[in-house]
Amino acid sequence: MPDFQAWTTRVLTRTEDALQHLLPLPSIAPERLHAAMRYAVLEGGKRVRPLLVHAAGEIARADAGVLDAAACSVELVHAYSLVHDDMPCMDDDTLRRGKPTVHVQYDDATALLVGDALQTLAFQTLARPGLLEHPGTQVELLHDLAVASGSRGMAGGQAIDLASVGRQLDRAELEFMHIHKTGALIRCAVMMGARCGEPLELTTLDRLDHFGKRIGLLFQVIDDILDAESDTATLGKTAGKDAAHDKPTYVSLLGLADARRLADELLDQALEDLSAIPRSERLADLARFIARRRF
Amino acid sequence: MPDFQAWTTRVLTRTEDALQHLLPLPSIAPERLHAAMRYAVLEGGKRVRPLLVHAAGEIARADAGVLDAAACSVELVHAYSLVHDDMPCMDDDTLRRGKPTVHVQYDDATALLVGDALQTLAFQTLARPGLLEHPGTQVELLHDLAVASGSRGMAGGQAIDLASVGRQLDRAELEFMHIHKTGALIRCAVMMGARCGEPLELTTLDRLDHFGKRIGLLFQVIDDILDAESDTATLGKTAGKDAAHDKPTYVSLLGLADARRLADELLDQALEDLSAIPRSERLADLARFIARRRF
Repeated sequence: MPDFQAWTTRVLTRTEDALQHLLPLPSIAPERLHAAMRYAVLEGGKRVRPLLVHAAGEIARADAGVLDAAACSVELVHAYSLVHDDMPCMDDDTLRRGKPTVHVQYDDATALLVGDALQTLAFQTLARPGLLEHPGTQVELLHDLAVASGSRGMAGGQAIDLASVGRQLDRAELEFMHIHKTGALIRCAVMMGARCGEPLELTTLDRLDHFGKRIGLLFQVIDDILDAESDTATLGKTAGKDAAHDKPTYVSLLGLADARRLADELLDQALEDLSAIPRSERLADLARFIARRRF
Repeated sequence: MPDFQAWTTRVLTRTEDALQHLLPLPSIAPERLHAAMRYAVLEGGKRVRPLLVHAAGEIARADAGVLDAAACSVELVHAYSLVHDDMPCMDDDTLRRGKPTVHVQYDDATALLVGDALQTLAFQTLARPGLLEHPGTQVELLHDLAVASGSRGMAGGQAIDLASVGRQLDRAELEFMHIHKTGALIRCAVMMGARCGEPLELTTLDRLDHFGKRIGLLFQVIDDILDAESDTATLGKTAGKDAAHDKPTYVSLLGLADARRLADELLDQALEDLSAIPRSERLADLARFIARRRF
């Protein structure tokens, strides 16, 4: 996929540029907070959610500048959640994206404020007046991002995760947790990209919603496989920590072989969801990329 | 002001009702998170920001239901900031609104997620599709709320506050901190109410912006006076804690008599800002109420 690789490089470059511009400069007061926000977001991260926004945006022939803002808003929500999840009162992790976590590099209070301010910046970014031609759609996207991020989405999934430490979940419970914790925002990234351009038919949006849900689970299954198989240097974050914290994973529940089989199944279904949608080749490539990722 | 008292009672009742409906029930998963979110927000708080939204809304003859949503969104941002500010890594406070703080009643991880999810709920509330007749205005209000809350507003003020512990600030620095920490959101509450109804003239909005800025400072000066004068039981939060933490306040900087004089001055100027604005009597009453509050 040489074309796919060139495309990802292009999207990653413009995402990094857009984030650079959105994040206040460290020369602006409060300087330490702004420096820490940039530390948390820039130069790191796989940027899977921005890639999903841009790939889904191709289906709706969306403007790349609009997609940049949408992509950054989702990525900022993701980045805030990582900063808070790594804090001592949560997962207490010291390494993220190959660097010391924010509370280690700065301090706990700064990490708390960094997460808070990154979440705010996410909504500020998506609420830029005039971003979308139809402000009504923009309001809907803001609402969708909030629902996907809040207590009945990502933050709720984190709460379920906390409550599950040391308990053996069954597969339905594990899936319920992941649908919230990582799935909701990944699904939101797909739908947001698809809604930034020309209006799509309801059946298309419905198929993309199914696709987003499957990709969210696929992403998590692969995460669990990599966590079980890789070492810390390759991952850029602490490997094997779920097992160490006695947290349930797809690998601990199904075993490695069946977890792999589940990933293959989810990829097949996700590609099937896209099969009737014009201009969805990029999204299909991205789904394959997510299924095959090694870090 | 018997009429003013009846009005505040009415607004407080409808605000409480609206918050009750917005916050997910504790029977919905994740149950503990939802219970803690309700604990953090309901039955407590002076609701100064919702009162400001509704009073400013009278100037623009705004619909009360629209103002409820705007008022709740500002109050939820305020509530999230209190939960996070009280955490051990920040002010480490155990009492708020006469009750144990969220991390004491629940635990640190839950408090972290409660704050995160309340911020999200604030934006979700203001992004309710169809809330305002003009979605373009709704996008602007969402943008304003984000700017007022983020690293160059409330969260930034908190960062400046953190950096100031143990340092003697001069009055300009103290003012800079408060303009961000409490002022930005109070100003936002006034402007939001004023923009939820009929379009107002730019000069009126400009005067209201000045009014909001002064009221924000007035609120803080009174807070400092009460913190120095009152006991913990009356305040419902730990009294004298700023002095105990060696934090600068208007009282420590100016002395009690000059802090009172400053409060009187700010009230006079605020009332002057309103003098030419029709239907601003309620907002004027509220300014007087803020200047005279005893808790």
